[in-house]
Amino acid sequence: MNPGFTGSPLDRADRLRNDVEAFNAALNDWRARVLGLDGLDPVVASEGGLKWISMAEVDVSVDLILLGLANGKPHFVPLVEGAGGMARSPAVWRALSMLPAEDAAIYGTARSLIDWHNNHKYCGRCGGSTKVFRAGWGRQCTACDAEHFPRTDPVVIMIAEYEGKALLGRQSAWPKGNYSALAGFLEPGESIEEAVRREIMEEAGISCGAVRYVTSQPWPFGGSQLMIACVADADGDQLTIDYNELEDAMWVTKDEARAALADAPDKRFGAPPPFAIAHTLLRRWVEM
Amino acid sequence: MNPGFTGSPLDRADRLRNDVEAFNAALNDWRARVLGLDGLDPVVASEGGLKWISMAEVDVSVDLILLGLANGKPHFVPLVEGAGGMARSPAVWRALSMLPAEDAAIYGTARSLIDWHNNHKYCGRCGGSTKVFRAGWGRQCTACDAEHFPRTDPVVIMIAEYEGKALLGRQSAWPKGNYSALAGFLEPGESIEEAVRREIMEEAGISCGAVRYVTSQPWPFGGSQLMIACVADADGDQLTIDYNELEDAMWVTKDEARAALADAPDKRFGAPPPFAIAHTLLRRWVEM
Ligand SMILES: [Zn+2]
Ligand SMILES: [Zn+2]
Repeated sequence: MNPGFTGSPLDRADRLRNDVEAFNAALNDWRARVLGLDGLDPVVASEGGLKWISMAEVDVSVDLILLGLANGKPHFVPLVEGAGGMARSPAVWRALSMLPAEDAAIYGTARSLIDWHNNHKYCGRCGGSTKVFRAGWGRQCTACDAEHFPRTDPVVIMIAEYEGKALLGRQSAWPKGNYSALAGFLEPGESIEEAVRREIMEEAGISCGAVRYVTSQPWPFGGSQLMIACVADADGDQLTIDYNELEDAMWVTKDEARAALADAPDKRFGAPPPFAIAHTLLRRWVEM
Repeated sequence: MNPGFTGSPLDRADRLRNDVEAFNAALNDWRARVLGLDGLDPVVASEGGLKWISMAEVDVSVDLILLGLANGKPHFVPLVEGAGGMARSPAVWRALSMLPAEDAAIYGTARSLIDWHNNHKYCGRCGGSTKVFRAGWGRQCTACDAEHFPRTDPVVIMIAEYEGKALLGRQSAWPKGNYSALAGFLEPGESIEEAVRREIMEEAGISCGAVRYVTSQPWPFGGSQLMIACVADADGDQLTIDYNELEDAMWVTKDEARAALADAPDKRFGAPPPFAIAHTLLRRWVEM
């Protein structure tokens, strides 16, 4: 199983972004498709995939972002207004459980871009208003001309391992009984390995040695995050939990993790959903 | 050899950032040390490390960022004005060739933070002015109260490998004869592995299969970047170079890479400097 929100079939066609003529030709291409949205939520078509609409159905005053090409056909998403942020509606979860992986990846990219645009309407350098440029892959300040580009925030998410057991934690806001890998934003001046060790120390008081990279995936809620999944060798198992961050933390065996992933009736804890990288990480760990 | 800009000995002391009383106590700690800077450049002390000054030598009107603690001693950097960006003075390169790795890591964190503050004086959401909070690890909008945090931009940097040879490229602005790994910003909606394949395809026209993560390091010039180094299995060696991105690209053998890393007189190309992750990546690759 691939990590969630990966596997988009679209060619991002970077070369078209700086080419105003080519971009305009794409906008006027009769084969062009535009992603249907309900607010910020995806719309599931009757066949079970994302719903795409034609250019004629789009409000002409809305900016369009070029998501990329599939079989030469340009695919766009309208730059809608929306709070976005961490708020995920139940409709998004329902849609994600139905959408094919490729469609979830396309939606994730679209959602991250919309969120970035809505949070960067003004220039951080001078406070001037910014406008869309580069086919929706940037904004330029109308006052000082500074160019701003959509980027992503790296987040480390990790299991500490000690004598064959994995350290998992839970936050109080999560569904009862659910546990997952610890996670946190990587800070300026850190490597991935340093951020992994710092977060495990801060949240659980466990010091770690070697850090092994496992896999990565994008996460489109609360902005645009790059989730970087690792396993770290713990030096001991004596927990000092930071209760500002976690409600609980515990060491689980591979059998317990397998039961959770299989949603067994006698499972010790509830596992994260398949489109979360913590699920993929736990699955890879039990196979290590 | 560890990757450049890693190995800072400072405890980031995240717990002090939200604790105004503890932060004020740190500011008034007689043992507090403040990083000496010449503009944005580091100052090398007579003993060869970073120069630290006392609180008494600091302009009281300047905000101080808490870098962290060493042996309980608070370490700060003044939030100086400065264009920063990609501009690297020759003095920085000279200093980096002299500084111990731990000191380069501290300087890198300080420089990234200063750059972030100077580029986020206004709120991207409403255009209001922002002010420093959380001990220098954030800015808050004075108009809409939105909180903004210093984050980092992930960059993939990679070698494509085919039949024991590695693909390297050069940009026209680089010193004559220098070659390095290809690199590019990771985009919203991509995993690390997807970004690696896309960049190699865009810049050199090479399609790749499996991607192996090698190592990571922070890079403090041009903002705050997280450099993620990988090796990708190429499906072939027929190059289609994007001359907007690269002046040249070529396949090199492990012996040629060893000669370049050793700066041998008959080397085929010049290698990147030791504090660049491309150097570490090339070194790891020849040992694979
Ligand atoms: Zn501006
Ligand atoms: Zn604001």
